[in-house]
Amino acid sequence: MNLSEIGELPLLDIVKKKFSRKIAGLVVGIGDDAAVIRTGKTHTLLTTDMMVEGVHFDLRWTTPFQLGFKLVSANVSDIYAMGGRPRFLLLNFAAPGHSDVALFHNFFEGIGKAVERYDLSLVGGDISASQKVVLSATVAGDAKKIVTRSGARVGDLIYVSGFLGDAAGGLRLMEKIKKPVKIEKNEMVEAGPGWEVISPLMRRHLMPEAIEPAPYIRQATSMIDISDGLLIDLSRLCRESEIGAKLYEERIPISYELREAAKFLKIDPRELALGGGEDYELLFTAPENKKVKAFCIGVVTRSGMKVVNEKGNTSSIAIRGYQHFAD
Amino acid sequence: MNLSEIGELPLLDIVKKKFSRKIAGLVVGIGDDAAVIRTGKTHTLLTTDMMVEGVHFDLRWTTPFQLGFKLVSANVSDIYAMGGRPRFLLLNFAAPGHSDVALFHNFFEGIGKAVERYDLSLVGGDISASQKVVLSATVAGDAKKIVTRSGARVGDLIYVSGFLGDAAGGLRLMEKIKKPVKIEKNEMVEAGPGWEVISPLMRRHLMPEAIEPAPYIRQATSMIDISDGLLIDLSRLCRESEIGAKLYEERIPISYELREAAKFLKIDPRELALGGGEDYELLFTAPENKKVKAFCIGVVTRSGMKVVNEKGNTSSIAIRGYQHFAD
Repeated sequence: MNLSEIGELPLLDIVKKKFSRKIAGLVVGIGDDAAVIRTGKTHTLLTTDMMVEGVHFDLRWTTPFQLGFKLVSANVSDIYAMGGRPRFLLLNFAAPGHSDVALFHNFFEGIGKAVERYDLSLVGGDISASQKVVLSATVAGDAKKIVTRSGARVGDLIYVSGFLGDAAGGLRLMEKIKKPVKIEKNEMVEAGPGWEVISPLMRRHLMPEAIEPAPYIRQATSMIDISDGLLIDLSRLCRESEIGAKLYEERIPISYELREAAKFLKIDPRELALGGGEDYELLFTAPENKKVKAFCIGVVTRSGMKVVNEKGNTSSIAIRGYQHFAD
Repeated sequence: MNLSEIGELPLLDIVKKKFSRKIAGLVVGIGDDAAVIRTGKTHTLLTTDMMVEGVHFDLRWTTPFQLGFKLVSANVSDIYAMGGRPRFLLLNFAAPGHSDVALFHNFFEGIGKAVERYDLSLVGGDISASQKVVLSATVAGDAKKIVTRSGARVGDLIYVSGFLGDAAGGLRLMEKIKKPVKIEKNEMVEAGPGWEVISPLMRRHLMPEAIEPAPYIRQATSMIDISDGLLIDLSRLCRESEIGAKLYEERIPISYELREAAKFLKIDPRELALGGGEDYELLFTAPENKKVKAFCIGVVTRSGMKVVNEKGNTSSIAIRGYQHFAD
């Protein structure tokens, strides 16, 4: 049997089960957005992520600058999703020896931009040779109060912090545009629905910004960032909280830009909003009686995952979203 | 200009220079074995490393178990080299979808062995698809007293914790044996000088164990682990301490096994001891008047790096050791 036949999520479960030993000082181990360690009166948060050329990104339409920025955002998003503040960055950079040094400089420009944007400090890492560009980053942060995936309660409302599907829309556009666009240098490109429609979507795919959790921390009972898609990440939250969810499809926030681009791309924007990954919006639950400045998209139930469509019809849903080793 | 023409060390310097901003709470940033953050009354140490198939390892003669164990050892060694105690492990695992699931299980068995050996807890990470096997690990640890690379003083003696060149000798043997040997399951193999000679060397290459710094912490003024080779790592220590070094070639500890294997391989064991990487022994300095249970190999000078050979002749030395992007 090979890895593709098993799939990413069952593989993660195997690891989680094998290494579930709780030790002193460990508050949250494998299975949340970041690990949490008690250090004195505060918590230290740790998260890591890898990005592999040809799997996570395509250099045919991604600048190294964008790659660097996105790598950091993805990790920062995991710290934010625990209610934490990102502070320190470690970086591993591997590229073929024949790569032009501009790749290196441009990548670290993007890292620099992100370090500034998130007020981080790059404190370590490594540089090595490889056949394809491979990157990994670790971010350490701190938090007084942490918000895990496991605190949702039946009756809580389900919220997202912003529009969903935009990053996936941006990816579809880039697959058509098929060349790097230096949006970081205000480069523009022509494609169907006009720049004012496509540029926000491209930006969400190429240079996503992680969402600060500050407005939600006090109310949130559980939280996760949407990296692999609403349904897959919601199912993770449901599982860790041992609850179910009912979503109202028409409440899921879809941007004007995505609706316009979807017409041009001849796709259903709701599909992207439900299953598209890399939006890095926060998905969280909060008690019904709290005021929350976010989009309410559903309610926590005892079990199962259901979607209510525009006509009021309820259906059980299969999990859609990005899984490695799955086609 | 491409990355090969520049080389790993100048690239690291570019990054170090660009990101040298000191921030509150950061005790040691880029440029030591691990980053050090002040957290309450203690220090938190962070280090990360990447291993890429075809660059750092060859699956033709490495079992996934050995790979997992070695990845952790390499990171633990960096924590030890700061005088710290490793505590938490984060892991990124990427492999082709067509890989047999045995690769995955065997790799995590090796991780499990290392987690037990070093009393760690695996607390996070990621699994993804890739064309080649790519691994990265981050280890967080703690320390009351840290030992940096920058504390060596003129007149200090230079020590190593054990035999050098064994891992490089083991690599040369494996390049001849050219098939995986499950030493973790007591599998044996025939090759020239006999099992009792080759097996310790193979083990040092395939499943190196990091060296605990406890016996040296009180005396050490500076410390680094030997991952890329004695000369290259000593030159790093010299640079950070702004000192020079004089080494006595005949004092460099070379094991009986390496001497025997070197005859069979028709190589000079001193070359491997000076330039071979991955020994993961500790290299450190201590004041002359301290008792130290380690091999004294030289003395700290004002500047330059010199080696005194068996005949008493002194020569300046060029740095030898492993550098990515250099042939």
